[in-house]
Amino acid sequence: MQLQGTHLIAGKHTARDKDSFRAQDPRTGQSLPTKFFEATPQDVAAACSAAAEAFPAYVAVSSATRASFLEAIATEIESLGDTLIDRCNQETALPAGRLMGERGRTVGQLRLFASVVRDGSWRDLRIDPALPDRTPAPRPDLRQMQIPLGPVAIFGASNFPLAFSVAGGDTASALAAGCPVVVKAHPLHPGTSELIGEAITRAATATGMPAGVFSLLQGQTNAVGAALVQDPRITAVGFTGSFRGGKALYDLAVRREVPIPVFAEMGSVNPVFLLPGALEQDVDQLAEGLSNSLNLGVGQFCTNPGLVILPEGPKADRFLEALGGKVRGCTAGTMLSEGIAGAYRSGVERLLAHPAVTQLETSQSAGAGRATSYVFTTTTDAFLADRALEEEVFGPATLVVRAAGPEDFMRIARHLGGHLTASLFGTAAELAEHGELIQLLTRKVGRLIFNAFPTGVEVSHAMVHGGPYPATTAVAVDSVGTAAIRRFSRPVCYQGFPEAALPAALWDGNPRGLVTAGGWGVDTVS
Amino acid sequence: MQLQGTHLIAGKHTARDKDSFRAQDPRTGQSLPTKFFEATPQDVAAACSAAAEAFPAYVAVSSATRASFLEAIATEIESLGDTLIDRCNQETALPAGRLMGERGRTVGQLRLFASVVRDGSWRDLRIDPALPDRTPAPRPDLRQMQIPLGPVAIFGASNFPLAFSVAGGDTASALAAGCPVVVKAHPLHPGTSELIGEAITRAATATGMPAGVFSLLQGQTNAVGAALVQDPRITAVGFTGSFRGGKALYDLAVRREVPIPVFAEMGSVNPVFLLPGALEQDVDQLAEGLSNSLNLGVGQFCTNPGLVILPEGPKADRFLEALGGKVRGCTAGTMLSEGIAGAYRSGVERLLAHPAVTQLETSQSAGAGRATSYVFTTTTDAFLADRALEEEVFGPATLVVRAAGPEDFMRIARHLGGHLTASLFGTAAELAEHGELIQLLTRKVGRLIFNAFPTGVEVSHAMVHGGPYPATTAVAVDSVGTAAIRRFSRPVCYQGFPEAALPAALWDGNPRGLVTAGGWGVDTVS
Repeated sequence: MQLQGTHLIAGKHTARDKDSFRAQDPRTGQSLPTKFFEATPQDVAAACSAAAEAFPAYVAVSSATRASFLEAIATEIESLGDTLIDRCNQETALPAGRLMGERGRTVGQLRLFASVVRDGSWRDLRIDPALPDRTPAPRPDLRQMQIPLGPVAIFGASNFPLAFSVAGGDTASALAAGCPVVVKAHPLHPGTSELIGEAITRAATATGMPAGVFSLLQGQTNAVGAALVQDPRITAVGFTGSFRGGKALYDLAVRREVPIPVFAEMGSVNPVFLLPGALEQDVDQLAEGLSNSLNLGVGQFCTNPGLVILPEGPKADRFLEALGGKVRGCTAGTMLSEGIAGAYRSGVERLLAHPAVTQLETSQSAGAGRATSYVFTTTTDAFLADRALEEEVFGPATLVVRAAGPEDFMRIARHLGGHLTASLFGTAAELAEHGELIQLLTRKVGRLIFNAFPTGVEVSHAMVHGGPYPATTAVAVDSVGTAAIRRFSRPVCYQGFPEAALPAALWDGNPRGLVTAGGWGVDTVS
Repeated sequence: MQLQGTHLIAGKHTARDKDSFRAQDPRTGQSLPTKFFEATPQDVAAACSAAAEAFPAYVAVSSATRASFLEAIATEIESLGDTLIDRCNQETALPAGRLMGERGRTVGQLRLFASVVRDGSWRDLRIDPALPDRTPAPRPDLRQMQIPLGPVAIFGASNFPLAFSVAGGDTASALAAGCPVVVKAHPLHPGTSELIGEAITRAATATGMPAGVFSLLQGQTNAVGAALVQDPRITAVGFTGSFRGGKALYDLAVRREVPIPVFAEMGSVNPVFLLPGALEQDVDQLAEGLSNSLNLGVGQFCTNPGLVILPEGPKADRFLEALGGKVRGCTAGTMLSEGIAGAYRSGVERLLAHPAVTQLETSQSAGAGRATSYVFTTTTDAFLADRALEEEVFGPATLVVRAAGPEDFMRIARHLGGHLTASLFGTAAELAEHGELIQLLTRKVGRLIFNAFPTGVEVSHAMVHGGPYPATTAVAVDSVGTAAIRRFSRPVCYQGFPEAALPAALWDGNPRGLVTAGGWGVDTVS
C-alpha cells in the first residue's frame, strides 16, 4: 500500500502547501520514505466546515447504522493486516507483538462502543409524565435524553499509535455519541495515521455516513492543533499526551469567544504504596512485577509507576536489592523518538543532580534513542520538600520514597496532587486497616488498585482513566471506560411535545428498547 | 428575629472588618436597619478551610443521614414562617405570594435531592466482575461509583432569593453529592440569606453534620467572590446570574494554578417561534400568555421570553395588536434594585435608539425603580445584521422579529447563539412538519417547549435548565433537574479491592439497594 502523505478531508486526499515532514525510524534515526504535508489554516477550516456540515446528517443516522459504522472501522483496521503493523513498528519502534495487542484493544474499543450505541444506555432517558390535574399548577410532559455536542477535535497520542490515536478511544467514543471527528495525527506516526484514516474513510463510505463525519490532518507544528482548537465549529477537544501539550490546548480553548471543554489526559507518576505486609511476602516476585510494569513499553505509559512509597527497614532494603537486580538485567529499549528520549534523559539528569536523591540502580547503559532504566531513592522529608519530585519523568524511571512509618504514608498522600491511579500492596487485613489512607488517595486519583501495578487499563464499563488536575483538565470524566462517551454529549429536554415530534428514543413504551435506569422514567415529583 | 449582619462560618457568627453595607427596600430606596459586614480575605479563607476540614467527615456520613440533613434544612426554612417572607419582601419587592411559592419550590428541591441521595441513582454504579480465566490476560474486578468533588462555592442569585440562593438548587445538589458548600450571599438580600444560613446551620447541628459543611459569606464587592473562586480548597463553582458575572468567575477559575469547573447559568432571551398555525387560533389568549410570561416577576427571570419570531402578515398584526393591548394594561412593577432597574432602562434605551427597531407598545410609565414593559419589533434582516439584538435585556421587554416566510425562521434559528430554551407554538401537525427547525433549535438550547412559554421551570428528573454558551459556561450540565447533582461528582474505580475495603454501595448483591441502570453491573466485555 502506497502512502500519499496527504490529509484526508471528508473522504478526499488533500494537500495545499509545500511544507512537509517525514517520519523517522527511532532505531536508526533515518527518515522514512513518504513526505507528509503540513496542514494549512485552510485545511483545518475545510475539515471543520465539513464536520459541521455533516453533523445534522450524522445525528439523523440511526443508532444501529452508527454502531455498524464503528464495527466497520474495526473490520477495516483488521483488514490492513501486516501493512499496519509494519509501518507502525517502523515509526514507533514498538515491537510487533505489542502492536498486535494494541490493535486488538483498538478494534475491541470500537466494538464495545458500538454495543453502547445499540443499548442506548448513554442516552440517560428520563421521562416525567404530565400531571394535568396537579395543583396549584399542572406539570407538563417532560422528556430528557443525551444528544451529541457537535464536531470534536481529537489529538492522537504518541505512545499508543493505535489505541489512543486516530481510531482510538477518543474517536470511538465521540463517533459513538454522534459527533463528527477531526483528528490531528501525531507527527511521530503519520503513516500509521494515514492507514487508519483511510480505514475509517472506507468504513464511512461503506455504511453511508456523511463524508465530513471524519477528517484527518497531518502536521508537526503546534500551529495546526492551535487552529483546530480555535475553530468556531469545534465543540470539544479530546487529547492524550504531555502536561505541556494538554494545558496549552486547554488555555486556548477557555479563551475562545465561545469557550469549549478540553478533555486532556496528561499522565502522572501513579504512586504505588507498599504496606508493610507486602514486604513480608515474596519480595522477589514483587520486585519483578514492579520492574515489568516500569519497563512496559519502555516506560512510555500514562500509568507508568513512577513513584513507590515503602516503609524503611531491612525488609525494604531486601526488596530494593531484588528490584535493583531486576532492573540491572533489563535490556534498554528504543523510545518513540529522539525528542522523547532526550526529554527522558533530561528528567533522569535532574534526578541524578538532586542533592537528596540517590541512584539505586540502572539497567545496562543504552545507545542513542534507547532508554536506560533507573531506580532512585529519597526520603519522605526530601520528597515533601520539593514539588518537582512528583513530576512525571516519561520513561522507565521510578523514585522510591522511604517512609519512617504509617504517618509518613499519610503525609505523602496528603501532599500528592492529582494522579491517574494509586496502587496499594499488602494483605487484605492491612487494607481494611488503612481506611483513612484509602479515603485520602480516593480524593487524589481516578483509579485505586489493590495488589496490582497501574499499567494495564481494562476497556470496560467500570474503568476510570482520569483523575484530578494535573492528571487531566476535566476531573469528572473518564477516557477509557464506556462512560467516556459522556464527554461528548449533553442533555436536552422536550416539554409538551407530541409523540410524533419527539425522537423515537423518547416515545412511550420505549419502542427502541433502550437501556434505562430503574429509578427514572416513571417517577413522579410533586 | 434579630439579624446580626455577620458571616456564618462553620456554624459561628463571625465578623472581622469594619466595612459594611445595608440592604435597601427597592420600593422606597431606603436602607433597611441591619448593617452587614463585608467578608475579608481571612473570612473567605476560614470558610474554605472549614469546608476542606469537614469534607472527609461529610463524605463519611451515611446517605440516609445526609438525606435527613437536606430534609431538616427544608423543615427549618418552613419554621422561619413570615419572618422569612417579610424580610425577603422588604429586600426584593417581590410579592409575598410569589415568595411563598418560591419557598415551596425551595423546600421541594431539598426534599427531591434527599430522595436522590436515598435512591443512590446518581452514584452510577458499574461493576465488571473479575474474569480470572480470560486469555491472554485475566480481567481484575473493577467497580466504579460517583464520589463528591470537594468543597464547592455557590453564588446566590438576585432574582430568586430563595430557590436559586443560599439554600437553592445549587446548594441542595452540592450538599446531596457530599460536597461542603461555601455560599457567597447576594448583596441585594443579605437578611434573607442570613435567615436561610441560620436555618441550614441549625439543620446541620441537629443532624450531626461537621460544622464546616456550610458557611455563608456576606459582601457587596466583587473581591469576596473572586477570593472565594481562587481559594485552592474550592473544587467547583455554582453560579446563577448575569453573563458578566458568570464569565468573570469562569475567567478566574480557568486561570487558577489548579483550574476548576464553573457551572454558571447566565440567562438568555429564550426565542419563541410562532408558527403560522398559532396565529390561526385564539390570538388574544396567545397574547395574554406572552404578556403574562414577559411580566412574570417583573421580567426578572432567566427564562423570560425576550425574543418572539412570527410570520408577518395580517394575522401577525392582529396578534401584535392584542399583545399591545395586554402590555398597555400592565402595572409597572418594582425591580429588585435601582441598579437592575437602571440596567433595564439602558437596555430599553439601546433598543429605542436602534434605527431598525420600532417600539410597538409600552405599559403605563413607571416611577423610579419601577419597570415599564416594552414590546419592540424589527425585521429578520435587521435582526440578523446586529448580534446585539440577541442580547438579554433583563426585565419585561421583548423584541418581535417579523419573518417573511419559513426560510426566515431557519435563517434566524441558524443565526442564534446558545439559549436556555426555545418555544414553538402551532398545531401538532405543523410541529411534525418542522423537523429541520426543531433539529436546528435542539443544537442551540437546553429545553424545547411546545405551546407553552418558557417561564416556569419544573423541578423534576427530566428538566434541563442549561444550554450552550453564552447561556451557560458548561453546556453538558443542568442546574435544576435531578441530574444537577452530577455537576458536583466524579467517578472513581476500585480495582481488585476485597469487599471489606470497598464502600458498601459497591458490595456484591447491592446491599444498600441503590438504583442501578439495567445495562450495567453484569456485563462482560472481552
